[in-house]
Amino acid sequence: MDVDVTVFEQRRQALKESLRVRGLPALLVSHAANRWYLSGFELADSQCNESAGWLVITAHGGDTLLTDPRFEEAARRVWSDEIVIYSSRKMEVVGAFLKSLNPPALGFEPRSLCVRDYERLREFVALTPTEGLVEDLRVIKDADEIRRMEASCVLNERVMLALPERLVPGMTEAQASWEVERLFREGGASGLAFPTIVGAGVNAALPHAEPGQDRLPAQGLVLVDAGGRLDAYCSDQTRTFWLGSEPSDRFRHVLALVREAQRRAIEYIRPGAPIAESYHLVRRFFEEHGVADRFTHGLGHGVGLETHEAPSLSSQSRDVFRPGMVVTVEPGLYWPDWGGVRWEHMVLVTEDGCRVL
Amino acid sequence: MDVDVTVFEQRRQALKESLRVRGLPALLVSHAANRWYLSGFELADSQCNESAGWLVITAHGGDTLLTDPRFEEAARRVWSDEIVIYSSRKMEVVGAFLKSLNPPALGFEPRSLCVRDYERLREFVALTPTEGLVEDLRVIKDADEIRRMEASCVLNERVMLALPERLVPGMTEAQASWEVERLFREGGASGLAFPTIVGAGVNAALPHAEPGQDRLPAQGLVLVDAGGRLDAYCSDQTRTFWLGSEPSDRFRHVLALVREAQRRAIEYIRPGAPIAESYHLVRRFFEEHGVADRFTHGLGHGVGLETHEAPSLSSQSRDVFRPGMVVTVEPGLYWPDWGGVRWEHMVLVTEDGCRVL
Repeated sequence: MDVDVTVFEQRRQALKESLRVRGLPALLVSHAANRWYLSGFELADSQCNESAGWLVITAHGGDTLLTDPRFEEAARRVWSDEIVIYSSRKMEVVGAFLKSLNPPALGFEPRSLCVRDYERLREFVALTPTEGLVEDLRVIKDADEIRRMEASCVLNERVMLALPERLVPGMTEAQASWEVERLFREGGASGLAFPTIVGAGVNAALPHAEPGQDRLPAQGLVLVDAGGRLDAYCSDQTRTFWLGSEPSDRFRHVLALVREAQRRAIEYIRPGAPIAESYHLVRRFFEEHGVADRFTHGLGHGVGLETHEAPSLSSQSRDVFRPGMVVTVEPGLYWPDWGGVRWEHMVLVTEDGCRVL
Repeated sequence: MDVDVTVFEQRRQALKESLRVRGLPALLVSHAANRWYLSGFELADSQCNESAGWLVITAHGGDTLLTDPRFEEAARRVWSDEIVIYSSRKMEVVGAFLKSLNPPALGFEPRSLCVRDYERLREFVALTPTEGLVEDLRVIKDADEIRRMEASCVLNERVMLALPERLVPGMTEAQASWEVERLFREGGASGLAFPTIVGAGVNAALPHAEPGQDRLPAQGLVLVDAGGRLDAYCSDQTRTFWLGSEPSDRFRHVLALVREAQRRAIEYIRPGAPIAESYHLVRRFFEEHGVADRFTHGLGHGVGLETHEAPSLSSQSRDVFRPGMVVTVEPGLYWPDWGGVRWEHMVLVTEDGCRVL
């Protein structure tokens, strides 16, 4: 992975500005994707309950990366500021370090700090909850991110284009899912962005079906929702294919509705437009065709270092689209006794509209 | 994945007994591996900050699975007790449900509940921290688990045996790592247990080196630490191979030390033996040969649904080996300017000793 250190430095400067505006002297960053966004250090933790390290970003002074000896070498490659190494006594070392900063208030990320660590750190310093300080920055992709996400999407598109000839009637969903993964990995992805969904026939009606031993039909639909991680950034696309000779009239009809809904949503997306309305307009379109009750999830979500990030394209949103947002647009219609159709693109909000990646 | 529901029921009964002994009326289970262990429902969460669902296990009454609509179908396949579905208002729904139980005290898992969720749930009920109630059960593998772990280890062994002829001088570490993953997946693994480590030459001295663009040497060492997940259970093995004609004398010598240390540790492991001593005996052996400062990590760790679980084979351990524990034994010696050698097996503690899986 090529690392341009100045990009991370710029992001830390933006966070420092955000801390100063809030009068917060420092932030403890424990969320893995936020850590990488600010440092280029370790995008993922090996297990959800094991951290590769934390950052402390200060409003006015230097920044610190705290990690264990296994990661010291990797840390020094990307981090020229202070590094604190802890071993098995992590909390004592981190706690003592935080105390030495003597901050009047130390912000932390309540969504990404477990109660156990929180209670132990509170013995050393006062902790102030914050809400999405780094995530707010991540919502608007910078030039480096857009470049990476474009490349990641190009790979996803190539995978989707290669799929029809590889989805052979009789192969299991699990085999099809492995085909998808091979295409991503052989195309340069470091891994999948999320476990691939392959739903044959009625299984396509399960929004998060685990690909199993059910076989692809000789004549019928198969839904594939897949994404890869390329150069750190996730892609996420869905296609619903028809296997066999001629698609059924019902499939054609449902697919046409879904794609038209998607087209309308993409046409709508532009800077300043309320996000919730993108959901409502799709819902209204489905209502006009008597199928709104078959549209059972949100319209989409932000994508970037994580598959699911802000903003959420839901009726609850109070945000507006802004240039640099990258979101999925993925209407779908599902019937448990028939199957489902979903079609998903990723779009980048531009200065005067949006562009499908 | 074949699911024998009675196995999960037995584990819930064991947890209920543990709750009764502690006088705790119920436990909120939020740790993903613990959730699967008790229910067979969703082993992993799609992102560390997104949960597929929680369990509430009571000491004396019924148990409940709480999840969102996307997982309802999957939940009903494995769970015949009560299911509570929440949508976007997760905390209100979960909180109200917990309150309806009216428990005098509700245990939770402080290591696997984030501060944000904790603060919101506390508005509804009093929460009592617990320490490893489910993990304590998971330390001792039951017959179903041992069967799965044996199969998982057999696959790992097959991968390691197939590797030497696939590790070709000139291929990059990243390519080698993809070869490893393909072997696991084509052998039936649902995924890797952890990101594969491939360290060529000096990179073998980095305990958690990310496989990069460095190439395998025509003549030299390469360390491979890899594991797969088969039928839900992880494997974890390390080999250090020599590429080229004749291993150097230094490699031969270091490898002999590492393997002898491993042999002694495995010979030592038996029920009742203090775990810390397995570490100390290896350390003493390395001291006798003047290389103890090159042994920079613990001797091993438990493996099961997670790659790293209890017990830890470290100097800090106060536990003893018990039948049914599955642990790695992985001594290693590292020189940053030369490379490193690690050799890792998984062993099952039996009634009268241990057995390499």
